[in-house]
Amino acid sequence: MVGQRFIQLLAEHPYFELTCVAASERSAGKRYSSAAKWYLEGEIPEAVRDLEVVPVSPEKVRADIVFSALPSSVAREVEAEFAKAGFIVASNASAYRMASDVPLLIPEVNPEHLDMIEVQQDSRGWDGAIITNPNCSTIMATLTFKPVYDAFGIEEVVVTTMQALSGAGYSGVPSMAIVDNLIPYIAKEEEKVETEALKILGSFNGSEIEQADFKISASCNRVPVLDGHTVVAFLRTSREATPEDIKRVMRSFKGRPQELGLPTAPPQPLIVREEEDRPQPRLDRNAGNGMAVTVGRVREDSILGVKYVALGHNTIRGAAGASVLNAELLVKTRKL
Amino acid sequence: MVGQRFIQLLAEHPYFELTCVAASERSAGKRYSSAAKWYLEGEIPEAVRDLEVVPVSPEKVRADIVFSALPSSVAREVEAEFAKAGFIVASNASAYRMASDVPLLIPEVNPEHLDMIEVQQDSRGWDGAIITNPNCSTIMATLTFKPVYDAFGIEEVVVTTMQALSGAGYSGVPSMAIVDNLIPYIAKEEEKVETEALKILGSFNGSEIEQADFKISASCNRVPVLDGHTVVAFLRTSREATPEDIKRVMRSFKGRPQELGLPTAPPQPLIVREEEDRPQPRLDRNAGNGMAVTVGRVREDSILGVKYVALGHNTIRGAAGASVLNAELLVKTRKL
Amino acid sequence: MVGQRFIQLLAEHPYFELTCVAASERSAGKRYSSAAKWYLEGEIPEAVRDLEVVPVSPEKVRADIVFSALPSSVAREVEAEFAKAGFIVASNASAYRMASDVPLLIPEVNPEHLDMIEVQQDSRGWDGAIITNPNCSTIMATLTFKPVYDAFGIEEVVVTTMQALSGAGYSGVPSMAIVDNLIPYIAKEEEKVETEALKILGSFNGSEIEQADFKISASCNRVPVLDGHTVVAFLRTSREATPEDIKRVMRSFKGRPQELGLPTAPPQPLIVREEEDRPQPRLDRNAGNGMAVTVGRVREDSILGVKYVALGHNTIRGAAGASVLNAELLVKTRKL
Amino acid sequence: MVGQRFIQLLAEHPYFELTCVAASERSAGKRYSSAAKWYLEGEIPEAVRDLEVVPVSPEKVRADIVFSALPSSVAREVEAEFAKAGFIVASNASAYRMASDVPLLIPEVNPEHLDMIEVQQDSRGWDGAIITNPNCSTIMATLTFKPVYDAFGIEEVVVTTMQALSGAGYSGVPSMAIVDNLIPYIAKEEEKVETEALKILGSFNGSEIEQADFKISASCNRVPVLDGHTVVAFLRTSREATPEDIKRVMRSFKGRPQELGLPTAPPQPLIVREEEDRPQPRLDRNAGNGMAVTVGRVREDSILGVKYVALGHNTIRGAAGASVLNAELLVKTRKL
Repeated sequence: MVGQRFIQLLAEHPYFELTCVAASERSAGKRYSSAAKWYLEGEIPEAVRDLEVVPVSPEKVRADIVFSALPSSVAREVEAEFAKAGFIVASNASAYRMASDVPLLIPEVNPEHLDMIEVQQDSRGWDGAIITNPNCSTIMATLTFKPVYDAFGIEEVVVTTMQALSGAGYSGVPSMAIVDNLIPYIAKEEEKVETEALKILGSFNGSEIEQADFKISASCNRVPVLDGHTVVAFLRTSREATPEDIKRVMRSFKGRPQELGLPTAPPQPLIVREEEDRPQPRLDRNAGNGMAVTVGRVREDSILGVKYVALGHNTIRGAAGASVLNAELLVKTRKL
Repeated sequence: MVGQRFIQLLAEHPYFELTCVAASERSAGKRYSSAAKWYLEGEIPEAVRDLEVVPVSPEKVRADIVFSALPSSVAREVEAEFAKAGFIVASNASAYRMASDVPLLIPEVNPEHLDMIEVQQDSRGWDGAIITNPNCSTIMATLTFKPVYDAFGIEEVVVTTMQALSGAGYSGVPSMAIVDNLIPYIAKEEEKVETEALKILGSFNGSEIEQADFKISASCNRVPVLDGHTVVAFLRTSREATPEDIKRVMRSFKGRPQELGLPTAPPQPLIVREEEDRPQPRLDRNAGNGMAVTVGRVREDSILGVKYVALGHNTIRGAAGASVLNAELLVKTRKL
Repeated sequence: MVGQRFIQLLAEHPYFELTCVAASERSAGKRYSSAAKWYLEGEIPEAVRDLEVVPVSPEKVRADIVFSALPSSVAREVEAEFAKAGFIVASNASAYRMASDVPLLIPEVNPEHLDMIEVQQDSRGWDGAIITNPNCSTIMATLTFKPVYDAFGIEEVVVTTMQALSGAGYSGVPSMAIVDNLIPYIAKEEEKVETEALKILGSFNGSEIEQADFKISASCNRVPVLDGHTVVAFLRTSREATPEDIKRVMRSFKGRPQELGLPTAPPQPLIVREEEDRPQPRLDRNAGNGMAVTVGRVREDSILGVKYVALGHNTIRGAAGASVLNAELLVKTRKL
Repeated sequence: MVGQRFIQLLAEHPYFELTCVAASERSAGKRYSSAAKWYLEGEIPEAVRDLEVVPVSPEKVRADIVFSALPSSVAREVEAEFAKAGFIVASNASAYRMASDVPLLIPEVNPEHLDMIEVQQDSRGWDGAIITNPNCSTIMATLTFKPVYDAFGIEEVVVTTMQALSGAGYSGVPSMAIVDNLIPYIAKEEEKVETEALKILGSFNGSEIEQADFKISASCNRVPVLDGHTVVAFLRTSREATPEDIKRVMRSFKGRPQELGLPTAPPQPLIVREEEDRPQPRLDRNAGNGMAVTVGRVREDSILGVKYVALGHNTIRGAAGASVLNAELLVKTRKL
């Protein structure tokens, strides 16, 4: 699902030209349209239809930037090979996210972490570099944390997620498992949500990240929704903040991508709605072309102070779109 | 949905004989099988098929105990009329749940609150009485709180619910609203979850309830599941308790219904499972004939101490079965 | 659902300006954004948001063409009033579809039936007129029949439909009725499918329609799909036709809307696919902006000769888009 | 799914004792409860929980009758080995269904085809034998054909199926493929539906089957329903028959299993309902413990004469229950 979203986003991109699609040996040598069954609405973009699929090898790939939707187990080795060979690897895989010299980026949140690339290249002796985006749920959550963290500080966050099927990949969740059902567990997901945000909101002191100092506890669920992760958040701020305060800082939040006018950046990273029953996956996941996070039901919480619901498109803002935005930031600010 | 569950549970009940079905004027005078479209699996029970539906009026109803699945707006007046006329009203409506002289019962949790009936009859001059069961989500949650509260005390609870469609009634949620979607809001639900448990876990001092002294914060969601409410709970206990402690007290928990062998009581009110991906609505909602609550994923929580997932059948344990169990307790212990 | 699709299609239409929204007394006087809960993806179009809703009365409505998504019971009287008062009524209601002097139009199929307007105005003494579009399933089916009928004649058609939830209106199908289920019945649907196509494919001799002379038998089902009606058709042609013949005439089929370049007309009314598992509602309903019908699995049938599967968007091509295309045809060819 | 249904049906069977569970090498040696993830409601039956899984080999299996839910590719070789080694193989696989010396049985329809066993043993030199049940959709359809065929003859049948997810196996249909969607194709299904019924309704002349002489045309669809295949049938009889005639012969239909009182036989193989919107998968699939087929909407058809909708549980009547009923018939009539 993420691979096809990459293709959809890159097919007519103003900065990038899609020159090459790489996949496992089984597909290599075929035309993309024969190798892949297209799962998204609409047709395979013309630009890709007849591309010959090449093996996942630095020698075979003709490109400056490589977008990776590899499974984590494979990513560890392969992404390093590519970075060593001089490629910029914009990765959606989890393999390097928590590595101390790899930027874990949300361009609206921590664009300055891009500077970790120098540390990375020095320490690893790479010509290229790996930059990563967080786990899908982390992205939605962290985008909502950022303006609150800056304005009021955060002490504790309790989150329950209701995550879409596409997050598990096309064949990840059998229909027999989920029709008239939900699954209150997603392998390795809670750990990611509980740790990644702290690195992202941490500060880079020129040599390493000092992680943000608060606690996140998560409980993650799979629900029968095609696209769109919903995050229910309960939040304790360091300084007092009313629901109106929270909404205000969220609404006025803009980041570097908005300043720079990056092509994939939504005009508003956070859309705050007032209806009592929003956000909803089917109605809100495509806000900002799938790149905006919609927040609703911001209200007082008797225990932690404030609670709200946030929602974003998991394979766009939460995966392929995240990597593309990372690459846009890199290209625009680094004159690559 | 709740009315039909009542019929299903009462049709062949060892204590009760279903003598009468009452409904609005529109249905009155018809045979039940013509008045109602049967929505549950299987056929309308024989015993009810040919019963003539009577109006909802104490003069027309021939019975000792009246089970009420009325909408709250109607229940306030009608249930009082019946109680005044000498009926025992076992109500699933919310109208009287929080009244200071009306028992809000979960037989495994607070059977002694039945003694409020005397206060109620005295103060209101009724021959009959109203006893109520809590909101569906409250029941699942409170059953899991009880053994923890008794053993370790509770300070704070954060809950997120994922609630089934049947909880809104047969026509409550249009399919267009919920296929490939979820709704992060259920009208008046959070208030109920946040207050009812405190009354139930309170102590009755002979004249009034002293409510339990802790805080509950809830965020309630509707998900595309037919039956079975899922509750994700984060809990701070007063005294330290490990996940193993929590599981132990849950597993050994039994209440009066189990001691008395009430016909609708499940052998175990709480079933604790060890699989990492349970409970799930479709697999666990019918445990204990829909009267057991299944708990899973009991684990440490970095913020509140412990977190887990609980699930129960919302129209059985959470509604009709709850009222029937209340009536069984009343009959058995009061020699009605 | 149809009303909102009308608004979506008309909000930025090159021929039409949306001047007025009319609804029942309950909504009249409110701004559209307060009167209506918007169910489609994205926001209410700007142009409509602040329009004041007026009552459904010729005196209150300021327009040349009125698009009607009224329930049939109301449509009979109201649409006549508007036509009498000089409005062109482009109706999606079934009230006048089979009337002998009212065009039942699919612009690609029987644009010449527009000439029935004169007969209608003469016989009824109206200044305005009513033009109608067929039932949603009829449209998909009849579009596929047309090129086959013209090239090879049709003797008999057996169709089974699998129809989307939106066809019943937003609250038409409760989620409890359809999750993990289907309903093998849709009130009054089969009669429409069995009769409307014969009028549409009939010829207008200047005073009346001579209906097409073949038989259609239908069995209609509701399935848990949001949008997109699927029609399984078995067809006996008058003259022999291989599956390749059928595909060829479907692929080359164009109608007046394509010749005239009507804004809502899809470039190709029929898209024939070769994959063995297409068309599918979620993948194909938006083809041609929801105005193309996708056909697949055209193959030999041992009994009737040929069988295939057709699919179209039921609230766009099958309802609102159909009425809009009718109005476009009228405006363009009649210089209204 | 079929394997687990076998276990459910055999765990407390009055004729059979479940002595052995065989599976691939990967599972062999483990206890059943460790080897298998249980997908059905309720717990793994006690009798099976601790059974050691053995390899699929005649030397390792301790049993008289072997129930096979093998994939067809494997079944061809393995079932023959077992039959050669003296086992009775009651198979749900398609490998031997159309073999000229293998009974393709529906006990209510063609119990006399069991006599093919002698031909089979003679020609193949086997001590054991293979008996098969038809494809799931064939079973539902053919059960409804039988009384009609006997009373009025059949000339032509057009069927459209809407088949449940469980028919493709637990992981057969990804949720991403089917939520808010349907797939108008099931590999190799139409061929089975079009041919198997003719063998079943054929007559065995002591040495071979003379197939029934009529035509069936099918179009098969996958829909988002967990269990329960729906068959829409249009039927031309040889002798005239009104819908009332059809309903009468269906209602009075009984077969050998009912005469013999076989434990898995439903009291009525066909249940005919009069409601306009039945049968429905969720409401009717469990009729007769999943072994009855429910028929509804029997009505006149303008083309073929009569049309109706039939529905049955695909993994019970359509698979595991079918094999078990076959074995019961064999045991009861052959004194095995």
